[in-house]
Amino acid sequence: MAVMLSTRVLGEQELRRLVGIVGLHALMDETIAALGRTVTEFDPSHTELRKRDGFQYQHPHPGVLEWMPVMKVGRQVVVKLVGYNPANVEGLGLPTILSSISLYDVNTGHLRALCDGTFPTALRTGAASAVASRLLARPDSEVLGLVGCGAQAVTQAHALSRLFPLKRVLVYDRRPETARGFARRVDFLGLEVEAVRLEDVEREADILCTATSVEVGAGPVLSGTRLKSHVHINAVGSDLPGKTELPLEFLRRAVVCPDYLPQALVEGECQQLQPGDIGPTLFELARDPTQGRQYHGRPTVFDSTGFALEDQVVLEVLLEHAQSLGIGRTFQLESLADDPRDPYSFLRPEGLLPEAIRIDAPPQVSACES
Amino acid sequence: MAVMLSTRVLGEQELRRLVGIVGLHALMDETIAALGRTVTEFDPSHTELRKRDGFQYQHPHPGVLEWMPVMKVGRQVVVKLVGYNPANVEGLGLPTILSSISLYDVNTGHLRALCDGTFPTALRTGAASAVASRLLARPDSEVLGLVGCGAQAVTQAHALSRLFPLKRVLVYDRRPETARGFARRVDFLGLEVEAVRLEDVEREADILCTATSVEVGAGPVLSGTRLKSHVHINAVGSDLPGKTELPLEFLRRAVVCPDYLPQALVEGECQQLQPGDIGPTLFELARDPTQGRQYHGRPTVFDSTGFALEDQVVLEVLLEHAQSLGIGRTFQLESLADDPRDPYSFLRPEGLLPEAIRIDAPPQVSACES
Repeated sequence: MAVMLSTRVLGEQELRRLVGIVGLHALMDETIAALGRTVTEFDPSHTELRKRDGFQYQHPHPGVLEWMPVMKVGRQVVVKLVGYNPANVEGLGLPTILSSISLYDVNTGHLRALCDGTFPTALRTGAASAVASRLLARPDSEVLGLVGCGAQAVTQAHALSRLFPLKRVLVYDRRPETARGFARRVDFLGLEVEAVRLEDVEREADILCTATSVEVGAGPVLSGTRLKSHVHINAVGSDLPGKTELPLEFLRRAVVCPDYLPQALVEGECQQLQPGDIGPTLFELARDPTQGRQYHGRPTVFDSTGFALEDQVVLEVLLEHAQSLGIGRTFQLESLADDPRDPYSFLRPEGLLPEAIRIDAPPQVSACES
Repeated sequence: MAVMLSTRVLGEQELRRLVGIVGLHALMDETIAALGRTVTEFDPSHTELRKRDGFQYQHPHPGVLEWMPVMKVGRQVVVKLVGYNPANVEGLGLPTILSSISLYDVNTGHLRALCDGTFPTALRTGAASAVASRLLARPDSEVLGLVGCGAQAVTQAHALSRLFPLKRVLVYDRRPETARGFARRVDFLGLEVEAVRLEDVEREADILCTATSVEVGAGPVLSGTRLKSHVHINAVGSDLPGKTELPLEFLRRAVVCPDYLPQALVEGECQQLQPGDIGPTLFELARDPTQGRQYHGRPTVFDSTGFALEDQVVLEVLLEHAQSLGIGRTFQLESLADDPRDPYSFLRPEGLLPEAIRIDAPPQVSACES
């Protein structure tokens, strides 16, 4: 009897249905809670993390396509493939970040699930800033500043609004129409959103998120000189070698906490720093939350490069709902059959030779190229 | 208006239908021809190759899960994910190699296609040996020897039967029942198959393929001392650090041609050799076919570690047929919408706020862990 292996797919339509039932706020809250637990309990003997790796190119526009793998030892491997193409927003009407996430059974190689990665990436990047801000920012933070008002800024505002008593959101984007459009994109949050000058964002924010597509070598995007002394910054956009958002002078004064140090040293704000100038990692902060509180009054930075563990967390949250709600297309992806030693046996259901094999094509000895 | 991006899936059912129309022999012939052209025309400025990388583990049994990426610059990225778990054949009735292949549009990150990788891996591994054997083996080779009679041996026999006037196939496996079952698995080839002693395979083969799951450090699987002086060996099973199939003494006498040198040095028979003892690569042989012919009379080895370019070739062959035949499930995987700056806009079809957003969950400020 042939073995069956089922692959579950969550595409746009399935995610729309899932979010419609679970609720967007509930999903964000669950992702924040799950990510908080995961970084607190992280144990490298159970979870093997890898730095992002991929292909970079300059034509037709600068961009990257990268893979982000993580293994739960003995259980599963999650790999996100992610494209980063800022030119696509204007050029093709596509998001800068487009992505898909795959979940493999580690002991067979079977693809258990495939999910859109675009919505989950935005969710988990917001959730990561919420987890870090809970450890580093003042709990009474009321003013959120956003520099860069694209897709990732939406989930920064959403996630932080779930944990902080935000009263105002001050936004700036180098494209004024992107800043002006932001209020409409987050109208479901019921917050007061104002498009203001960069210096006003810097001056007034208690928590500030940078989520820009600044070009490699073109940063920083803030002056760093007008900030509140207790500001907490989530630096979200730094995710390529040479791409940084914060001024070095400010980083040296601040406590800089990377999400995943080996990657932050290559792609994050930590690129600019010597190892001795880098603060505790998100994992270290989460294990000892008193550590973060001792920095209150000093600027803090979450160096959020985005790492594979976050993708695993959000995928698990989504898949758990999908399974319990019966959402998702399922089908048999891998070609299998009753004989694991015969790669053609899936062509012979019920032991019959199919047309495929009976077609009488003569060997091409005479026709071979050489 | 929302942007649409379509993902095509070729699973077991779709591949069965495709092979039923195209024919298995035709598919093998096309894969051999396409791979031959691809290695002949290979230009590293147009195609960026990466070594296989992945996770290794020892429990519940030794295995690996690896990714194999290749980029056609400006066009596409193909990534195969592949599990290698020899224990699964007996334990779960699953093939040692289980796999899936994804094709991404490099300039957007969009997943254009997802295909089973199990059947394609077997096809292309056979095709690679055929391409190499055409360049290195005697064209009048009549006796094929197979050491290791699992899934990969089936396509070795199939592919080589398309290019050489084979009269006999002599097979050996350390599990006698695996060797005895082989004749049935290749009955569609109409060849005389005999399960014999290892030494008989070694003595009589003009072309010999090793495709074993020998454990790391447990090789070689041949003596290397009884072989014909003109033998050509396709060493297919060597694909892990420490896993090799051929004796060093024999390799030193032979002309050893790796498929992809950077990978063969880490995982292939070339692990055992000094750089100066390694012969021309498959690319070099293909560009100058006279080179291979000068070795006739001397043993030759194709060090086939299996590389990403082969996966790209077979995927393209399959996808071209699927597209022209209209085979494959298609759906929208990535969550998109009319506003590329809003990751939630796919939740608001026709400008309406969905239930997802209207659900009134209060912020969790008081409930937050810290």
